[in-house]
Order: sequence, then C-alpha cells, then structure tokens
Amino acid sequence: MTKQANTPDGGKRQDTRLLERINIPADLRTLPESELPALCEELRQCIISHLSTNPGHFASSMGAVELTVALHYVFNTPEDRIVWDVGHQAYSHKLLTGRRDRFSTLRTHGGLSGFPTPSESEYDTFSAGHAGNSISAALGMAIADMTTPGREDRKTVAVIGDASIGNGLSFEGLNNASNSPNNLLIILNDNDMSIDDNVGALHHYLTEITTSAGYNRWRKRIYEFLRDKGLIDDANKRRVLRLNNSLKAFISQQQNIFEGLNIRYFGPFDGHDVGKIVKVLKEIKDMKGPRILHLRTVKGKGFEQAEKEPTIWHAPGKFDPATGERLKKSGAGSAPLWQEVFGETLVELAGQHPEIVGITAAMPSGTSINKMMAAYPDRSFDVGISEGHAVTFAGGMATAGKHPFVAIYSSFLQRAYDNIINDVAIQGLPVTFCIDRAGLVGEDGVTHHGMLDLAYLSCIPGMKVASPMDEETLRNLMFSSLTAGGPMAIRYPRGTALHTDWRTPMKKIETGKGRRQLQTLGARVAILSLGPVGNDALEVAHKLTREGLLTDHYDMIWLKPLDEQLLGEIASKYKAVITIEDGSVKGGLGSAVADWMTTNGINLPLRKLGAPDSWTEHGSVSQLRHDCGYDNESIEKALREMHLLLTENEETTAKEGK
Amino acid sequence: MTKQANTPDGGKRQDTRLLERINIPADLRTLPESELPALCEELRQCIISHLSTNPGHFASSMGAVELTVALHYVFNTPEDRIVWDVGHQAYSHKLLTGRRDRFSTLRTHGGLSGFPTPSESEYDTFSAGHAGNSISAALGMAIADMTTPGREDRKTVAVIGDASIGNGLSFEGLNNASNSPNNLLIILNDNDMSIDDNVGALHHYLTEITTSAGYNRWRKRIYEFLRDKGLIDDANKRRVLRLNNSLKAFISQQQNIFEGLNIRYFGPFDGHDVGKIVKVLKEIKDMKGPRILHLRTVKGKGFEQAEKEPTIWHAPGKFDPATGERLKKSGAGSAPLWQEVFGETLVELAGQHPEIVGITAAMPSGTSINKMMAAYPDRSFDVGISEGHAVTFAGGMATAGKHPFVAIYSSFLQRAYDNIINDVAIQGLPVTFCIDRAGLVGEDGVTHHGMLDLAYLSCIPGMKVASPMDEETLRNLMFSSLTAGGPMAIRYPRGTALHTDWRTPMKKIETGKGRRQLQTLGARVAILSLGPVGNDALEVAHKLTREGLLTDHYDMIWLKPLDEQLLGEIASKYKAVITIEDGSVKGGLGSAVADWMTTNGINLPLRKLGAPDSWTEHGSVSQLRHDCGYDNESIEKALREMHLLLTENEETTAKEGK
Repeated sequence: MTKQANTPDGGKRQDTRLLERINIPADLRTLPESELPALCEELRQCIISHLSTNPGHFASSMGAVELTVALHYVFNTPEDRIVWDVGHQAYSHKLLTGRRDRFSTLRTHGGLSGFPTPSESEYDTFSAGHAGNSISAALGMAIADMTTPGREDRKTVAVIGDASIGNGLSFEGLNNASNSPNNLLIILNDNDMSIDDNVGALHHYLTEITTSAGYNRWRKRIYEFLRDKGLIDDANKRRVLRLNNSLKAFISQQQNIFEGLNIRYFGPFDGHDVGKIVKVLKEIKDMKGPRILHLRTVKGKGFEQAEKEPTIWHAPGKFDPATGERLKKSGAGSAPLWQEVFGETLVELAGQHPEIVGITAAMPSGTSINKMMAAYPDRSFDVGISEGHAVTFAGGMATAGKHPFVAIYSSFLQRAYDNIINDVAIQGLPVTFCIDRAGLVGEDGVTHHGMLDLAYLSCIPGMKVASPMDEETLRNLMFSSLTAGGPMAIRYPRGTALHTDWRTPMKKIETGKGRRQLQTLGARVAILSLGPVGNDALEVAHKLTREGLLTDHYDMIWLKPLDEQLLGEIASKYKAVITIEDGSVKGGLGSAVADWMTTNGINLPLRKLGAPDSWTEHGSVSQLRHDCGYDNESIEKALREMHLLLTENEETTAKEGK
Repeated sequence: MTKQANTPDGGKRQDTRLLERINIPADLRTLPESELPALCEELRQCIISHLSTNPGHFASSMGAVELTVALHYVFNTPEDRIVWDVGHQAYSHKLLTGRRDRFSTLRTHGGLSGFPTPSESEYDTFSAGHAGNSISAALGMAIADMTTPGREDRKTVAVIGDASIGNGLSFEGLNNASNSPNNLLIILNDNDMSIDDNVGALHHYLTEITTSAGYNRWRKRIYEFLRDKGLIDDANKRRVLRLNNSLKAFISQQQNIFEGLNIRYFGPFDGHDVGKIVKVLKEIKDMKGPRILHLRTVKGKGFEQAEKEPTIWHAPGKFDPATGERLKKSGAGSAPLWQEVFGETLVELAGQHPEIVGITAAMPSGTSINKMMAAYPDRSFDVGISEGHAVTFAGGMATAGKHPFVAIYSSFLQRAYDNIINDVAIQGLPVTFCIDRAGLVGEDGVTHHGMLDLAYLSCIPGMKVASPMDEETLRNLMFSSLTAGGPMAIRYPRGTALHTDWRTPMKKIETGKGRRQLQTLGARVAILSLGPVGNDALEVAHKLTREGLLTDHYDMIWLKPLDEQLLGEIASKYKAVITIEDGSVKGGLGSAVADWMTTNGINLPLRKLGAPDSWTEHGSVSQLRHDCGYDNESIEKALREMHLLLTENEETTAKEGK
C-alpha cells in the first residue's frame, strides 16, 4: 500500500471504491479491518488529486491518514469526540465525515473551511487553527461529560502534533489533565516536524524516546511476560506501567515527562500501520484516566517529494500529481513578498547593528526570519510555537543590551498579549514587533486573519504602532525603530508588496508623522489610510480626481502616536474625511480619527472603511475585501457617495442661506 | 535562629546590627558565612516589624529570606542578575539592595513598589507581578550575555515558585532553555503553595520528589562515592547526574521532568538552611548549561501564625507582631466585597442551573470562587496559574453543554487573550467572564491595575461587555448571561460594593440597554458612566443639580453592545456629554461614545474621564483616581467646567446672534 502511494499515478486511475461507500464514519465502521489499508490509499490519492489543483495544507494531512481512519473506526463519532489541534491535518477527517462531495470547495469562498469548524459539521468539535488548544478543550469536554448524567461513557480524543505539544497552553492542559476525574485520550502525532524544523527540549526528548529501540524490545518482553502471567489488569495496570517506564528510564537514561505529569503513556508506535493503531486504540479505549498515545508519523507520507521536503510541501500550492513538480504562480518574481522585504532588511540592519537579534515562534520561513538565521545563526532564535515565551525572551534580551526584532503573525501575536504588556511595554524596552499576516489573509480564514492587532496594541501605553504603505517605508520604519525608544509594532500583510526595485537606502522617519500622497487645489474630500491599502486609496483618489471629484490622500503611517498636527490641518482643509485600514474598524485608524475629531470639537462627515465588527470567513483576499467593503470598488463607492453628500449639503445650504 | 524567629518579639528588641552594615549586597559579601543565620533573623524581624503596620505580601517574603541572602552572598549582584518571578517574595531583596531606609514607604504612593521594578533599582532586573515570566526573561538575558563579548561570565538566576512553574509560559521557557548555549540557573522555591493551594500534576510531582526520602539517601551515597573516587568532574557530571536521576526514577518510580527537558536537576534541599544553600550555590554556580536547583521552603517561615495559615497570611493586612492577631479594618462588614457578591450569587445561580460550572486560575479565595467550591466541589475547577487553559477548558465545557463562569482578574485575563478570541468568541460559546480587579487596584500597582480589558475585549466580535454600578446589577448581569447567548464579560473592581442589603431577587436585564439614574428638567449636561464609578458620578451630579448646575446621569451598564438608542436620545437632549470609566480612556466608554458621535454626525462637546494612556503606579485607589483625574473632585471640576463652557458659548452665541 505504502509503495503504491509513493508512486503518484497522476490521478488517472483514482480508486474510490471504498470511499464511495463512506458517507459518514458509521459506514466506515462496517468495513472489515483488512480493508482499511486500501481505504487509506484511496484517501491519499483523493487528497493528492484535489490538492494538486486546489492548494491547501498537504503534508500534514498526508501524514495523518491512518490515525484518522483508525480513530473513526474505533470510536463512535460523533457521539465520541475528536478534537484536532491546529487542524491542517484533518482533510481525511473531512473526507470521512460527509464532506467528500464538497471537498473541491476547500478553502474557497463559501466552501469548506481548511480547518475543523464546528459550524460546518457536528464532527468538528472545536475551533482549530491556533496550536495547542486541543488538550485543554478536550479536557473540558471530557470532564463535562463525567459530570453529566448519562454521558459518562462518551469518549474524547485530542489529536496533537509534536510541535503543538510544546506550546505553553498544551502544557497547562497536560498539567491539569489529572486534576479532576476524566478519561481523556491524547494522541501525539509525532512527525518530528513543525511547519519548519521542530525545536525545544521536548522535541529532542520525543526523538530520544523513539530511538531507544533497545529499550522498546525490553519493555515489550516484560509487558508480554506480565500479561501472560495474568499480572496485568485494570487494577494494577498503572503500577506496571510505572515500573515499565521507570525501568525504561533506568535503561535508556531518559525520564518520561508524561508519566511525571501523571498521564499514562503508550508508545511510540508506527502511525502508518493502521491495523496496529486500531489494535492499540481498542486496547486503551476504555481505560480510565488520562492517557497519551505516541504515534510516529511521516509528514507528507505517501508522496515522495513531500516526504523529502516537508516544509515546502506543508502548503505547496498547485502541483503536478504525476511528477510532483510544483506549479509556479504566474507573475511571481515581479515584486517581493512583504515578508521578504522584512527578512532581507533585517539582515541588512543586522550587518550594521550588532545589537540586533531576530526571534520567531516556529515560523522561520513564513516570516522570512530564515534569512537572518542563514546570515547570523548565533543572533537568530526560533523558539518553537511559544509566542508568549518569544516576547518575554525578547524582553530579557532587551534588558541585556540587545535590540530584538520579533516576527510573529498578527493573529498569533494575540497569544503573547500579556507578555507584550508586562514584559516589554511596562518597562519601555526597545523591541520591534514585526507583525506579518496583518489584515485579511485569505484562504486560511477566520482564525488566521489579523484583524485585531491595531485595537489590542494601540491601547497599550507607550506602544508605537505603524504600518507601511510601501517597501521603502517598511525599511525605514524598521531602521527608525532602532532609535525610536521603547517598543514599536510594524504591521504588514500577507502577499506581495509593490515594487521590484525596493532596496532603497534606509533613512530615519519621524515617529508619529504621516504624509500627504495626493493633493489637488480645491479638493473637498480626504482619504486617510494606514498600511498597504493606501495604494488602493491612492489609485482611486487619482481616478476620481481625474474625473473632477477632487480627492486628496494621506498615508498616516502611524496609528500611534496619531499625527494630530496633520489631522488638524486636514480638519481645517477638507469638508469630509474617509479612513481606510486592513483591520477591524473597531479600535483602529477609523476609531482613532473619530475619537480625535470628537475630542477636538471637529464636526466633519467621517466614513470608516475596514473590516466590520464581525468574523470574516475564508476566501481570496480580494473576495473578502469586497465583502468587508474596502476593495477598490468599495473605496470608489464610498468616495463618490461622500462627494455627493457634500454637494447635496452645499445645495441645501445655498438654498436656505440665500 | 529558626526557633527565635518562631517567637515574634513584638518588634521590641529588634536587632539590626548586621543589617545596618549592609547598604548594598557587596557589603553582605564581606560577612563571614557564620553570620548569615543571624542576618536572616534580622531580616525576618524587619519584615515582621514593617509589615505589621504597613500591609503587604507577608508569607512569601518570609519564606524566601535564606535563599535571598544566599543568592546575594554567592553571586556578584548587580553584575550577576537575579530575576524574581511574581516578585512578592522579594522584600529581603529590597532590604539588602539599598532600599532599607525607604522600606517603610513600601506600596505607598510615591514609595517603593511592592514588586521588583527596574526603574526603582539596578538590582531589579525585570518587571515582575505576573507569574511565569522569570525563566523566559532570564534566558533572554543569559543568552544575550553569551553572545556579547566580555560578558560571557555574567551569571543569571531566575527564582520561581512551585505554582508559577506550572504556568505555560514557564514551560515554554523550560522547553527552550537548552535550545541555545547558556548558563541559566533556575531556583525552584517550592513551598508547596500557590496563593491558595497549589494544583496540577507538576505540583504533585514536586511533592513526590521531596517525599522520596529513601531515594535521597541512596542518591547521596552514590554521589559521594563517585566524588570520592574522583569520578565526578565537569566533563562527566552530566552523565553521572543522568544515571543518578534515572536510578532515582527506578527506585522511586518517578520520572524527572526537568531532566526530560534537558535541564540539570539538583535537589531538593532545605531552603531555610542558609549555609547549605550557600554551599550548593557555590558548587553549581560555575557549571555550564541550564540547571535547576530545587529548594523546599515554608511559606510564612518564622512567624507561627503565617506558617499555619499561609493563604490568610499571603497578604494579611495589619497585625500585632507580638500576638499575631490580625487587625480588622474599621468599618469592614458594612458592605460586601464585589467578589463576595459574585461568589455568593454564583452559588445561588448554580443551585438553580445544573449546567453552571465555576473556574478559577489559582485565585479561589481572591475571586470568591471558593464559595462555589464549597457548595459544588464537582462543578468547580481551580486550574492553577493557567489562565489560557482556564479559558480554553471553559470553551470545551461549553461545547459539552455547560455554562462556565470564569473568574479571572482583569490584568491576568490578558494572558488568555487568544483563548478568549479563538476558543470562545469565534465559536460564540456561552461563557461568562467575571472580571475581578477591573480598574485601579491600588497598592499592587502597575502590573495589577486592570485598565485595558475594556479596550481589548470590546474589539472582539460577538463579545458582550458590561459593568454593574451596584450589586443588584451585578447579580442581574450574571443571571442574564445565562440566556444572552455567546460570551459575555462582566467587570467589577477590587474592594467593597455599596449596600449591605443586596440579596435581591435576580431578574433578566436587556442586553445593551443602559438606564437613566438622574434626570432634571432643563439639564444641559449629561454624565455617562460605566461601572461602579457611576456612583460617584451620580453623587456629584446630585450635588451640582442641587446647586442649580443641572446635570443628569446615565448608567450605561454595557460598553458592548453600546446603547445607541439611548445615546441618540442623550445627543438630542443635552448640550454636552461627559463620560467616566474606571479604565483606560483609550478604547473604553469614552472612545466608544466619541466614535459613535462622529459616525452619527453629532457635534457636542465631549469630555472623557478615565485613566490616561500612560502607566499608573501604586498608591491607594483614591490617590490614584485623583492622579488619573476621575475621583469625585475631578468629576466635579470637569462638570463645572463643562457648564461654564456652555454658558460662555451661549453668551457668545447670544451676542453674535442678536
């Protein structure tokens, strides 16, 4: 089976004989165990076929096929619950739970979400997307059931990867797993990988567990001996296991962390041997108390190229299923990604400023910190999925004379909120937060959009918050942060920037100073923007100005400190103002300008463009910006309406006045 | 020494012979080791004497005397750095680092902070107050030094309690401690206590380590044997230690978690034997790589009553140093604490609604969740210092049919920000966040004030945010949250509420509906309040109205959804508006009203009272409210100024118009 899967067949003779019989997991449970390997092969081919034309998270789902099949085979889903951590490994789960027919809509506007989503299916038990929540959430469910009459036998299983389990939230869940009676089962899906390389002591520890082959033989012998003698039953299983693991510790000189946390540990087992997983799951399914089952899997399993280069194949884009060749996006190469501008600028700055260090939380390639890691490995730190630690660690380094650049995606920076406040901002430490994926991110959807950072950062005293409209400004902001004093946040979006020729000499820009981008004598309306959406605002302003609807444009650059002097000039000069930002209108630029206007007794019509105060689902960025009302069409509409309003007002005034 | 310390002497014959010779730790290092126990005794007496009249965190500091003396004795502070976790154990540290003369100003306005504060002393290396940041921050410092020429030998020590080390941030720090070369030393100050009882598997684990006395004898013998044979040196110490700990695991059937995380483990040792600690510290001080030293201490050590009841003596208020009798505050008992209203109401509601569960993160007595724990132990969960887990766990329970009430202090809820967003709000789960210590908290100062929750919660889509002006409204909000749908946050401050007769029947109040509290025909100014500060607003409004400066008052109750209908009525009725809230003006009620006014084209003078967008230090709540400009005097001043402004405007208009 595995061999066959290793030879992609180009989707030509895709076999769905078994899959077609499975509309819901109950159908799966009617198959004989002997058919499961073939089903796994069908699932793999189905994922390869779909993902080759409709991009998504490939390698993680390929590695989790057998464990998914085994879980739905052994557990009575949806009565029993599976809680997926992160959730980008859950495509087989979606295919087996009534969503095969819609699988081609994956991650598209109005289609299936790329992550488990409770509103989409009763089999999706909890929102996924941010690493580490599965154990805590599943523990909540498991304990809730234990205290609900008639539901005590319901089973809950958390499925978590080896990178996620190193997150602090996972640890808190593990640490609390034995606090109250519960029968939680944790599946550790250990593929020795994060999206990039996995880091941290726990990771090395898991690797060591697995490589202690000598010990495993010993353990097996002892276990079988005790079982054969009838010495293992439910009453003393725990004791045997402890002896077992302490014997292991003695032989291998390793310590079992999970046992230390009072969680029964089983494994490691081969996570691609579906028969074995089914067998083990059946054995431990009805045991009492929290348990962890350690499965070793291969990220990208069954597709040669993905197995070889799992980081690239984490989300490879479109590819040829026969050859494994990845298909380049047309037009790529004309402009850099925002993250690349950040990454290369950081390397440049680091060359001139030995105090600079770079920090990422498990996203070296996603943030382009990998460029710094290549150039200055001793001054670059990937701390794994530990955003809180990343920020506090940066605070510590800053007190010791370093200037950390911490690159974290907007939605993940939420995990370090208290750290930003207490471990950096209260102390006024010089840390530059480079916030990637700020604003709408597109297909990854609701858990990944970076809509709230403007609001949650700008309320922090002493925090400077800026967003560049172009590459040059991003570079200048990064450069300026070195001497601006205290913490500074620079946000920029996912995707491509503007110019190919962006390696301009860096210069210092003044904190809290915006700039005028378009001015025409007699313009009545000004549009004020923050960040790259300013380019759209400028384009539309140009267009309308050419038409005679004179519209000026200001790139505010800074949300905090707000350029109050510039706002004063604008207020005295124009008859109406429109703001635009790629984030929630609540707490961002629009709110700040509105607040400033009221506080200063300015009475001008104001329209705020940006994401509404509601959740935005997945789709292309352009579709979502349209939905949210700040694509070019929406900007143009808003500006036209504002001009019309002013004209109407003037006519009314003229009629009444004269 | 210890015996003497156990017998408080009422401060009568307080001996400060040694202390007087120590202005800075360098002076301490000139003492012979034999004098250290006497110095510890002097420190204890000094703490008892001061704290008996000037309340503070008593028991933690009493338990950390010896380890503090030993650290400053062995390490070359401030060149070597001590990073205190939480920091309420650091009074001896303050007394030894040049602040003895100002110790009587502790926690008072303009005086010493109750926590280590870098702006106060070069010996305070990092901001403390929120549990779990010490390892990450110290690791940042240690690694920064390793990569800074000439600083490689600087030492960094993190001091963390057994409750703090169970926090996810601590785990992330531990997990990353072996990622990059560093010589971090972690002191685990294990007193078997949180502020309340400690919980979690790690806690039990530490207890088990300590009680394995049989093992400890074995280990000691083996270690001494190997040392005597000359088999232990720096090159093989690690190997010996591993053998040592795996042997321990075999004998005691325990696993060493820290070794599993690749951190060398030493201990446990008696944390009150200052000579022993000095000896061990000298031995391990120059070792390479991350190490953890496990010290067993007694919270409240040296004061009998505190040793017996460490939770009560965590922060006991004033007391008689001779008898240990705690001195009741005068007037206490007339009105309940806000937290008591919450706690008792929760028990009442839980009696009627079996789906209710109560969750706290290590603050059962501080939040009064302990009332629920007493009444419904199976439906109450103290998860330890794990705010993130607390919220995600609540989310999991909510998906399984429970209605969790999660009681967390405002400033600590920042630690669960992403959990609130992703694990509750995105899914629209019915969780009630009961946010205690919202607003200014007084003496605990900058890290503990709850100033940001209004801003960081109100930007979350679907989150309802309310604050009651009185006990009845708090009860009604809690009751209403059961049927309001989705998540809801109810914030209330530290301290006493209003009425003694507050056990009113609960009734449902409408989401997003404020109420008028004072109306006089012809009033020109309205003051709009959120939360208990409304009582001050109402009092001042009454006073001015009696004087003829007619001022109406509205209790908005809800920040989100904002009562736009009521705002519309207010805007059409009054000539000016003042808002007041116990939180940052940035992102709270004032900002929301300003935003609403601009968006709706309302042009009224608006004045926003609340905390400014800057950090507020420690002092009494009344002093701080005065500084922040929203005590009664400030309210009155603002209202008078607003009335005056209106009168001036009218006169101007009258002159110009007629």
